[in-house]
Parts: sequence; structure tokens; C-alpha cells
Amino acid sequence: MFDPVEKLKEFIRQPSVSTDPKFSAGMKGAQEFVSGLLGSLGFNVEVAKTEMHPLILASYGSDQSWPHVLIYGHYDVQPADPLNLWKTPAFEPTIVGNRICGRGAADNKGPLMTIITAVGRLLEENPKLPLRITFLIEGEEEMGSPSFPKFLERYAPRLKEADFVFLCDTALPNENQVVITAGLRGLALLDVQVTGAKGDLHSGLHGGVLRNPIQALAEIIATLHNPDGRVNVPGFYDDVLDVQPWERDELKKLGANEEEYKKFLGIEAFYTTPGFTPFEALRFQPTLEFNGIGGGYQGEGTKTVIPSKAFAKISCRLVPNQSPDKIKQLVMDAIRARAPKDVKIEFVDQHKGEPYIVVPPGRSNTPPDQSPVLARAFRATDQAVTEVWGRPPLYLREGGSVPIIAEIKRVTGLDSVMMGLFLPEDNLHAPNESFNLDVMNKGIETIRRMLLAVAKK
Amino acid sequence: MFDPVEKLKEFIRQPSVSTDPKFSAGMKGAQEFVSGLLGSLGFNVEVAKTEMHPLILASYGSDQSWPHVLIYGHYDVQPADPLNLWKTPAFEPTIVGNRICGRGAADNKGPLMTIITAVGRLLEENPKLPLRITFLIEGEEEMGSPSFPKFLERYAPRLKEADFVFLCDTALPNENQVVITAGLRGLALLDVQVTGAKGDLHSGLHGGVLRNPIQALAEIIATLHNPDGRVNVPGFYDDVLDVQPWERDELKKLGANEEEYKKFLGIEAFYTTPGFTPFEALRFQPTLEFNGIGGGYQGEGTKTVIPSKAFAKISCRLVPNQSPDKIKQLVMDAIRARAPKDVKIEFVDQHKGEPYIVVPPGRSNTPPDQSPVLARAFRATDQAVTEVWGRPPLYLREGGSVPIIAEIKRVTGLDSVMMGLFLPEDNLHAPNESFNLDVMNKGIETIRRMLLAVAKK
Repeated sequence: MFDPVEKLKEFIRQPSVSTDPKFSAGMKGAQEFVSGLLGSLGFNVEVAKTEMHPLILASYGSDQSWPHVLIYGHYDVQPADPLNLWKTPAFEPTIVGNRICGRGAADNKGPLMTIITAVGRLLEENPKLPLRITFLIEGEEEMGSPSFPKFLERYAPRLKEADFVFLCDTALPNENQVVITAGLRGLALLDVQVTGAKGDLHSGLHGGVLRNPIQALAEIIATLHNPDGRVNVPGFYDDVLDVQPWERDELKKLGANEEEYKKFLGIEAFYTTPGFTPFEALRFQPTLEFNGIGGGYQGEGTKTVIPSKAFAKISCRLVPNQSPDKIKQLVMDAIRARAPKDVKIEFVDQHKGEPYIVVPPGRSNTPPDQSPVLARAFRATDQAVTEVWGRPPLYLREGGSVPIIAEIKRVTGLDSVMMGLFLPEDNLHAPNESFNLDVMNKGIETIRRMLLAVAKK
Repeated sequence: MFDPVEKLKEFIRQPSVSTDPKFSAGMKGAQEFVSGLLGSLGFNVEVAKTEMHPLILASYGSDQSWPHVLIYGHYDVQPADPLNLWKTPAFEPTIVGNRICGRGAADNKGPLMTIITAVGRLLEENPKLPLRITFLIEGEEEMGSPSFPKFLERYAPRLKEADFVFLCDTALPNENQVVITAGLRGLALLDVQVTGAKGDLHSGLHGGVLRNPIQALAEIIATLHNPDGRVNVPGFYDDVLDVQPWERDELKKLGANEEEYKKFLGIEAFYTTPGFTPFEALRFQPTLEFNGIGGGYQGEGTKTVIPSKAFAKISCRLVPNQSPDKIKQLVMDAIRARAPKDVKIEFVDQHKGEPYIVVPPGRSNTPPDQSPVLARAFRATDQAVTEVWGRPPLYLREGGSVPIIAEIKRVTGLDSVMMGLFLPEDNLHAPNESFNLDVMNKGIETIRRMLLAVAKK
């Protein structure tokens, strides 16, 4: 068997930024790395071409009577900029204490390597294990999985043979407490662009006669939240469901500390919607955030220009029962209605993802309608976590999004068992991303036990 | 005598961007070019070192009884970005029709070359002309002339020997109408930076618990103007003086057309302070503009981050009797008072410039207290313009700023005769800057006649 840490280093060294065409060599390298590794474990590997980055489909076991797990992961990573804020090189993995640092270490290369290692050990010990395993590893997660729906439709007949999906692309609250993710927020992303004059203007020669597009953009943005923190877009909350009592109770067991969280974020005060603690707000409430803003001169010193254009990148996180398409329309309608008439407003439609929810067996008053193998997988995960980590997992929704989980459910009917493996301090999507190697080791053992228990008896 | 267009090409080829240290070779090249050219005309050239870019001081004639003109110009230019919007290379001068295109063609290399050529021809024809001429050419105008005050103090005794200042660094409304600039707006510049969390955050994992600094910045910016276009900063207009009737009358003679101006700018509607036409507003009213804004992810596609920081670059244009220091303080006070308490606000103090006003002889009901040589210079300019252009000049304030004009007045007591030479379509401070060569030729002849008339009789 390979050394998982050395293999993870190889993986991180491939700079697989899917959103930036400059990194096409890194994308190819990462894809070939994963394909080769799964092939070396005896998997039958197919590389499914898409219009952008191919998916890897790798299967093991062919007896239709065996339980069948579909394992999801992604080999692409977020852009690494701003590079000057990295303490170690973004694409040269570096061990610091019990952590491995590098872009993608936690999202999703480390957790994916954790699963592959568990599968490798399991198959090495049990060469005839009655369990079908299909890996489905995509290269477009960080760009919103644009090719995934088409792939799903095409491969649906084969994918439907599986009993459930397993993945590690969600979070742990701390390294002693495993969380099985019971829900994910959806996403609706768009850019708004404001145009004033037809070109940049000298702010002395023309200043005072027209509305600056930066001012117009700010005036629009400033209307999108109420002072109390709620999103100020008509209809935004209409489809939000009430939170179930068992979910609030489960979250209380987490015992999260507000002061510690504030300190971790480095903020003076929280800013949440009324009636929700910060820990509830980020799981149970939708948001409207500005991921970027730009316009005019941004360099050193000054340039006395009235820019022609300014833009903002908007993303909404959505909770179950909200529709990304509907929310995008509501946001665009609100912006158009509020924009000053002396500037031009345009939108760039970015990607989207539906929210998702799955209820674990034995929690809800109304038992979920689930396949026996899925229920067995939940119970096996619960037991393996309890054995390896010394305490049972919690079942919590999380604030992040894995849009393809809802998409898989829609097309194949399959639900997902999502075992969190990355920590708040892992700096996902930010400089100095890292992954905890103790978590990795416990994760390998947990997944090995879980899969063994799911296999046909 | 040299060919002024060929010389201007040489000058533009030196990429003299003063605000960006990458262009130090271009700055040196431009300085040496001007020094060499003035030396070749028989001037005694000194290069006065500063902490940044040196000033050129070049003098001709030493008889203390001769009239003495101090000619101001600058050899530095604005940054050329965004480079992709240039139709011809920014630093490779290109003749298109009757225009020369390139960064600095109009601001200020073309107008400066116009004056130097006029002086060259004048001295070639009149080798013993009883006129003292001192060129004072700086390299820091586009960065707010940080070294100029210290230089002025040091050289004040020599500079005070002059009778008036002459310069061409202001605008013409069209190529048939010369304007003598009777006033300039001042400038007060600062950056505001907003910090939220201590680092960039994943907008899924943490979205909904804290105020996004882009949102906070937008909420601040949106308060700084009233819907009617007035700046919403307490005390901002307190020191603004009433406009003199002769100034409004003079402006009416310009016959500027609002529809044409709207079309030139490419806007649907004007946005001016109440009670002022657009042409009045940009000359008689102060502004608060946003020259740039930035924060978070600005690249292609999406990055679902809550940025730690966002910033805006603010500049105020000020009218006579307003104080840049006072205005900066009022703006900072307003921002601090209105900023949400859950983010951190910091300011970067950028440069500033006092506003300036000079009343030409015979216009005001209360005649200005002026030296006879200054009055003669105004009358000589008026006559030369009338002869060469076929109509007399107008005396108008302009919206732009040449901060050192007020500084020269303060330190030496000298007023300035400012003859506009660049046109609205010259794209100052923007991509595709150019300079009209017909204007250049008329300008050379006008200045030649004016200087001849100012010389001792």
C-alpha cells in the first residue's frame, strides 16, 4: 500500500484550478494522478469527457446482489490568489506540525485521499469483499459543476444501480467531533455591472455632471440588506421552511461557543438575522453576500478618474425549498427597480445549486422513506465514528454547498452520507489552506470500518 | 529649428509615469529630453533634485529691467492602464488624421512642446529680445506635486523675480474657442479601507454571521450624496462663495449645448447639484467622487469568499475658499460617524491642492490689484488669440486642478495666465489620449506673438 501523505503531496503539487484556463496542465495532471491511483487499486477506470474538465468514473465489483456505494469527490481546487498572503507555496505541499499546507489540501484533495486510502486498505485485507464501489470524481466542482447535469443524465442508468452516495466534502466543528452533514445550502450566483459614461472620464473636467457608477453600485448594494441583517429583497424568504425541533436540539449538543467563534473570525460583533444564533444562522438561514467588487483605479497612489464601469459579484446561499432560479430573478428585479435611471445595469448569470436535506434514521418524528442499504450505511457510519473517535457523530446541516448532491438526488434518487473531515481552521477558499493529518488517519480507519460493515453479510 | 511634431513624438516615447516606480527609466528619459531641448535653445538648464523626480529650471536673459515670464509645465504623465482599451500603443506616438495619439500627448507633453517651440522660434527671430524667460518643468504633477512646496520655498527668492506665470495645462471647449482659465478647482484625496474578519472566509461556512466589508463600504458610500446630487457631508458647502455675475455671463458666451455634451459623455441624464447647469456645476461646484473601488474576487467566474477587506479611493474637487484639509476632515468624520460598528475603518491620506482664482483686467466691478506686467500679459494674450484664432478668448474657471498654481501664488505672490490647449475629445487621464495638431500650430503662433508683446518696449 502507498503512503497516503506522500500521495497527497503528489496530488496537491498538481495546480488544478478549474476556473482559470492557465491551469489546464495542472487539471490534466490531477486527473491522471487520480485515475492512475484508482487503477493501481484494481479499479476499472473510465475518463468521461465533458466540454471542460473530464470526470473520472472508476468501478470495482460487479455482482448485482452486492451493496453498492457511489463515492463522490472532486480533483479541482479554488484559485490560490492572493498569492502574497500564503506563508508556504500554494502548490508545494509543506508539512507544518500535524498539518499539510497547500491549495486543495482540505478541499477536496485531503478528504478524497482519505477515502481512497481507506478503500485501498479494505481491498488489500479483503480481496473478495462483497461490496461494489464506484468512484465518481469530477473536475468542475469549484466552478459550479457545469458539465455534471449532462453527465448525470447520460450515466443515470448505471448510477442508479448504486444504493447510496458517500463523500467527505463537508466540515467538522473541531477535531474531536465528527459531523454527518444532514443538509447543504444551495447557491445562486450572478454579477451586476453598472455603466455610466461611455468611457473613463477626468474627474476634474467632468466631475459634478454625472452619476459615478461606483456611487450607483454602492447605492444599489446598500439597499440589499435591512439594518437588522435580513436580506431586503421582496420574496427572498417566502419559501424558507421552519427549522425542525430535532435539528435545533442536535445543534445544541455541539456546544459551540460564541466568544470563541468571534475570536476565530476576528470580528467585534455578529451580524445575523433576528431570532437565530450565529451557529443557527449559517445553517438554517439564506444569505446574500458580495464576493467581490471592482471599478476604476485600484493601484498605488491616485488616478483622478470617473470610471465608466463598476461591478459586484453576488452570491446567495439558499436553504431547502428555496429555488436558485427564483432567487436570482428576485434579486435582479430588486436591483433593476432600485437602480438610478441614469446608469445602465447588466447581469452576468453565474452558476447555481439547489439546497439539499437528508434525515438520518431515528431522528425525525416522521421517519424518512429510505432504502435499507442507506439506513445501514448511516448506522454503520455512526458506529464506526463512535469506535474510532470515542463519541457518536452529530447530524447537522452545514452552511456550505455541494450543489451536485441535490442534482444526484433529483436524477438518480440517491441520498448521500456526508462525513465531514475539514476543520474551521483549514482556511478553505482562502490563503494558507491546510488539512489535519490526525483527522486524516482517523478518517481512513472510520471509512474502512464503515465500508466493511456495509458489505454484504 | 526642430520639427515640433517629431520632437513631441520623442517626448511621448518616454513613458514617464510618475506614480509607478516601474517607469523610473521613462521618467529619467523625459527629464533628460526636456533639459536637452531647452539647452539647445540657449537656456541655462539646472536639474533640481527632489526626494522623487527632479524639477527642471531653465533660464534665458539676465537683465533685471526686462519683463520676466515664468513658464510652468510637467514632464510626467498619468498611468496608461487599462492598456487593452488603447487603439494605438500608449507610448508609441501615432498620427491619426490631425491628431497625435499617446499617453501624455495632451497632458502635458503636447502643450509644453507648443510653448517650447514658440519660445524657440521667437528667440531665433529675435536673438536679443528684451524678455527674461524661466522654464519650471516638474515631474510630479500627476502624483500631486509632493516635492513642489519644498522646491518653491527653497527657490522663492529667484522665482519672485518673475512678473507672472504662463502655462498651457488647461482645456479648450472646442478647437475654435480659446479659453483663458480664470480659476481652478482644488483637490482633496483619500482612501477609505474597511476591514471585517481577520482573513478571507468561505461564504458558505461562515456566511450569515458577520457583516461583509463590501456591504459595509457600500453602505458608507451610499450615504455620501443626497438624491439631488449634493454631497451629504455636514459642512461640505460652508465655505463655497457665490459665483460672480460676470462669470455666469462669460460662461453663457460659450454657448455650450447640453444635448451634445450628454452625447459626448454617453449618458442618459445629467446628475448635477440643484441650481446649476452642467457647465456651471463642473466649474463652480465642489464634488465628491469615487475614483476606484476594490475588494474580494474580481476575476473570471466565481469565488465564494467573504473578503476581509474592501476599499474605495475618494477625491473631492474644491472651489475657491474651500480648504482641502478641512474637507478631508469633514469627510473622514462623516464616514466614521456612519460606519457600522462591526467593521474597522482606516484612511490613507493622499495628496491635496488648494483651489485658485484670478480675475482678468476689465471684467470684475472691483478691479483686481495686479502688477502692470501681469495686466499687459493678459491683454497681449487676448490680442494674440483674437488675431490667430479669429475671435477673442473667454475667461472661465475650469473643473480641473493644477494645485501648484495656488501654491506658487501663496509662496511667490505670482498669478498665472493659463491658456487652454487641450480639447474635451483628447481623453485626458483615459485610454486613447491624443492632441490636436492644428491647435498645436495655432498655439505656437499665439504664444510667439504674446511673448513678443510682453517683452520690454
